[in-house]
Amino acid sequence: MLAAALRDGTAHRQTTFEVFARRLPDGRRYGVTGGTGRLVEALPEFTFGGDELDALADVLDDDTLAYLADYRFTGDIDGYPEGELYFPGSPVLSVHGTFAQCVLLETLALSIFNHDTAIASAAARMVSAAEGRPLIEMGSRRTHEYAAVAASRAAYLAGFTGSSNLEAERRHGVPALGTSAHAFTLLHSSEGQSAADGEKAAFRAQVEALGVDTTLLVDTYDITAGVAHAIEVAGPGLGAVRIDSGDLGVLARQVRAQLDGLGATGTKIVVSGDLDEFAIAALRAEPVDLYGVGTSVVTGSGAPTASMVYKLVEVDGLPVEKRSSHKESHGGRKQAVRLAKESGTIVEEIVHPAGHPPEIPQDLIGRPVTVPLVRDGRPVADLGLDAGRDRVRQGLRSLPWDGLKLSKGDPAVPTRMIAPRRGR
Amino acid sequence: MLAAALRDGTAHRQTTFEVFARRLPDGRRYGVTGGTGRLVEALPEFTFGGDELDALADVLDDDTLAYLADYRFTGDIDGYPEGELYFPGSPVLSVHGTFAQCVLLETLALSIFNHDTAIASAAARMVSAAEGRPLIEMGSRRTHEYAAVAASRAAYLAGFTGSSNLEAERRHGVPALGTSAHAFTLLHSSEGQSAADGEKAAFRAQVEALGVDTTLLVDTYDITAGVAHAIEVAGPGLGAVRIDSGDLGVLARQVRAQLDGLGATGTKIVVSGDLDEFAIAALRAEPVDLYGVGTSVVTGSGAPTASMVYKLVEVDGLPVEKRSSHKESHGGRKQAVRLAKESGTIVEEIVHPAGHPPEIPQDLIGRPVTVPLVRDGRPVADLGLDAGRDRVRQGLRSLPWDGLKLSKGDPAVPTRMIAPRRGR
Repeated sequence: MLAAALRDGTAHRQTTFEVFARRLPDGRRYGVTGGTGRLVEALPEFTFGGDELDALADVLDDDTLAYLADYRFTGDIDGYPEGELYFPGSPVLSVHGTFAQCVLLETLALSIFNHDTAIASAAARMVSAAEGRPLIEMGSRRTHEYAAVAASRAAYLAGFTGSSNLEAERRHGVPALGTSAHAFTLLHSSEGQSAADGEKAAFRAQVEALGVDTTLLVDTYDITAGVAHAIEVAGPGLGAVRIDSGDLGVLARQVRAQLDGLGATGTKIVVSGDLDEFAIAALRAEPVDLYGVGTSVVTGSGAPTASMVYKLVEVDGLPVEKRSSHKESHGGRKQAVRLAKESGTIVEEIVHPAGHPPEIPQDLIGRPVTVPLVRDGRPVADLGLDAGRDRVRQGLRSLPWDGLKLSKGDPAVPTRMIAPRRGR
Repeated sequence: MLAAALRDGTAHRQTTFEVFARRLPDGRRYGVTGGTGRLVEALPEFTFGGDELDALADVLDDDTLAYLADYRFTGDIDGYPEGELYFPGSPVLSVHGTFAQCVLLETLALSIFNHDTAIASAAARMVSAAEGRPLIEMGSRRTHEYAAVAASRAAYLAGFTGSSNLEAERRHGVPALGTSAHAFTLLHSSEGQSAADGEKAAFRAQVEALGVDTTLLVDTYDITAGVAHAIEVAGPGLGAVRIDSGDLGVLARQVRAQLDGLGATGTKIVVSGDLDEFAIAALRAEPVDLYGVGTSVVTGSGAPTASMVYKLVEVDGLPVEKRSSHKESHGGRKQAVRLAKESGTIVEEIVHPAGHPPEIPQDLIGRPVTVPLVRDGRPVADLGLDAGRDRVRQGLRSLPWDGLKLSKGDPAVPTRMIAPRRGR
C-alpha cells in the first residue's frame, strides 16, 4: 500500500485513522482503555534500521525504501487517556497525518491496544469482584514472554496491587510481589528424610533469607501439617501463607481457624490457582487476604483481544467510509463526551464530529473524554500509570450498578453516534 | 527462591524440571509442540545485564546478584522436537542442571511453550480443515506486538503458507504474503468523484506498483462492481481478488461465476474475515483458493495458552513429587515412546522413566519421541522450521481418523504413564 501510494502521490494526502471496537467482548458491560502510554512511548523507537531495510530491499522500490529510512511519526494523536472506560464505537484513538505516516502505525497501534485493553478490561472486573482486597498478577508464564511484561502493566493499570514480573517493575514501575513455588519445598527433600522435615527445611531457608514477613506455600504435601510447620518455623509473626490448590473457600476457613488457634492472628492468607473474576467473587465471604491471579488475567479471561480496528475516516478534511455489507464504519474525525447525573453515575456516551460537541441537557454533566495525546510526534499528556489507575477507579465508581455485574449483558450505557455533516 | 537456595546450599543440587500439560484445551484431540526452537535460540541471550542487576540491587543480597551476573544456562535439555504432536502428560521438555540453573528458566520456557504451542495447535486444526488449500496468517494486529512475530512463526510451523508479518520473515524466514486494506481504496476517493472512479484509481495504483499478479480487495463498496472494476483495470490475468465480509460461501460462488464470465478463469479468490477452523471447514465445497486467518489463529482459537507447567521431578537423581490435592505431578525424569500400527496410525503414547523404555508389542511400532536438544547449554538438534513443518504433516497423517474431528472429544490416543521404580 505504501509503495503504491507513494507512486501515485496519494501517500501525502492528509488523513485521520481511528481506533475503536465495534463491540465489547461477548456480554461484557464495559471496557478499560489500555496501551495509550505504551504506544506513545513506542513512537520514537518505531523506525526502520539497516537490518529491516536490508530485509525489505528485494520487495520494495527505492523510493519506498528511502521513505522508510527517514520514517518517524511526526503527526498528531488524540484519544481516550489510558484507564478511561470505553464502549462500542468509542474513538479511543484518532491518528492524524499523511496517509504514509499513519498507515505504517496500524499494526503497532492495534497490537498494543488490542492486547493491553483486553488485559486491563479483564483485570478491572477482577478488581471490582475483589471489593477492595488486593490482587497480585502472577501469570507471566502463561503468555508470550514480552506480552507478559505488558500484561503485568495492564493489570496494574486496572487496579492490581503488583505483579510477580520483575521486568515489569524495572520497565514500568509495577511493584514486584511474589511467593515461592512447590519446587522450592520439593528441592529440600532428601533421601531417608520425612516430607515434614523437608518442608520445614525449605521454610527455614526462606525465612532465613527473607525474614518472617514472607509468604510460605503450605500445600505441597498436607495443608494442615504445612500450616503447623510454617508457624513452628517462622513463629506467629509470619507474614502470610499461600494455598494454591483444592477448595479454596473451605481451606481458607480451616487455615484461618488453625492460624488463629496458633496465635498467628496477623498472618495473612493468600489464595491462588485458576482464579478468575467469578472465583474471586465467590470467595468474598471467606477469610482471604490476597488473591494471586495468573492465566485468566493474562489471557483476558475469555477475551484475549479487544477486537479493535484501525479505520481510515477522513481524507483531506472530508469524511470517508466503507459501504459494503454489515461491517459499517462511520466516517469523519470524531470526539466523545460522556454524560453523567449529578451523582456521578454515567448515563450515555456521545460520539460526535470533532469540533462540534452536542448540547448537554441541563440536568446532566457532559465531560469531554477525548484529549490531545501527541502533537508533532511528541507526547503532550500525562501518560503515567498513577493517573491511569485513578481513572480506572473513578470509571468503576461512575458505572450504573448493573454495569458492574459479572454476568453477560448489554453495555452499561448506550453510545449515541452523531453523523458528520457531509459524506462522500 | 534463588536467594534462599544459594544461602543454604540447595541451589547446587542436581535437578530435572519437566514441562508438560495436564490436559489439552477443552475438547481438543491433540496438540502440536511449539516453541522448542525459540527457547533454544533464546538461551544464550538469557543473561542479566547491568540494567537488570541495578534494578534488583535493592531486593537481592550480594551473593545472589553475583550469581545472576555470571548466569548462563549450561545444563542439558531433552524433549519433543518442535512440531511433534503431544497429549496430556507428554514430557515435551526436560531440563537438567543445578536447581539455580534450572529454576531461572521457568518463566522463559513456559512463556515460550505456552504461547507458541497454543498457536501451533490451533493453526494445525485450521490446516487440517483447509484440506490442502493454503492459509495466510494475518492476525498480527490482534495480539501483542512481539507475540505477533512468534504467532506468525508458530502458524507457519503448523502448515500455514505464509504471514503478513514482515518481521517474522526477517527473523524466522516465514514467507511474507499479504493484500491491501480498505483504507487504500478509501484513500483514492476525491470530492466530486464517484466511488467507482475512486476504487478504479486505487486498483490502478496497486497494479502499477505491484503488477497484475497482485490481490485486489473488492468489497469496499459493492462486490459485483468491485470485481468488474478489478478486471477492467488489471485484465483477466489478475492474480486474485479478496473478499473480507459478508456470507463468504455465497459470495465466493457469485464472484467465481463473474470472474469466469469475464474470462478471468485463472484469477484466484482469497477470503478473510473472522475465519476459524469451523468456518474454514464450512467453506470446503466453495470455490475458495486461499484463506486469510487473523484473530482466531493468533489467539489460539479459544485456547490462548497451552496451560503447560514446569515441575521439579528429580533432585540428586531421586524422583520427587507433590502430594496435595488433585494437582498430581509424576516424579522422576521421563521419556516418551509413541506406538503405531504398521499403517502408521498411532494408538498410544507411553511415558516411561528415562533410560527404561517399555517393551513394544510385536504387532506395533514404537518410536522414541524424546530427543536430546541441548548439551552443556549448546543446541544439538535440527531446530529448523522446515523439519518442524514436516513433523506436523507426518503427525496429522498419523492420527486415527476421529483424532482429526473438529468437535470436542477425548485425546486422539491414550497416554500410559509408567511410574518410576522408587519415590520418596
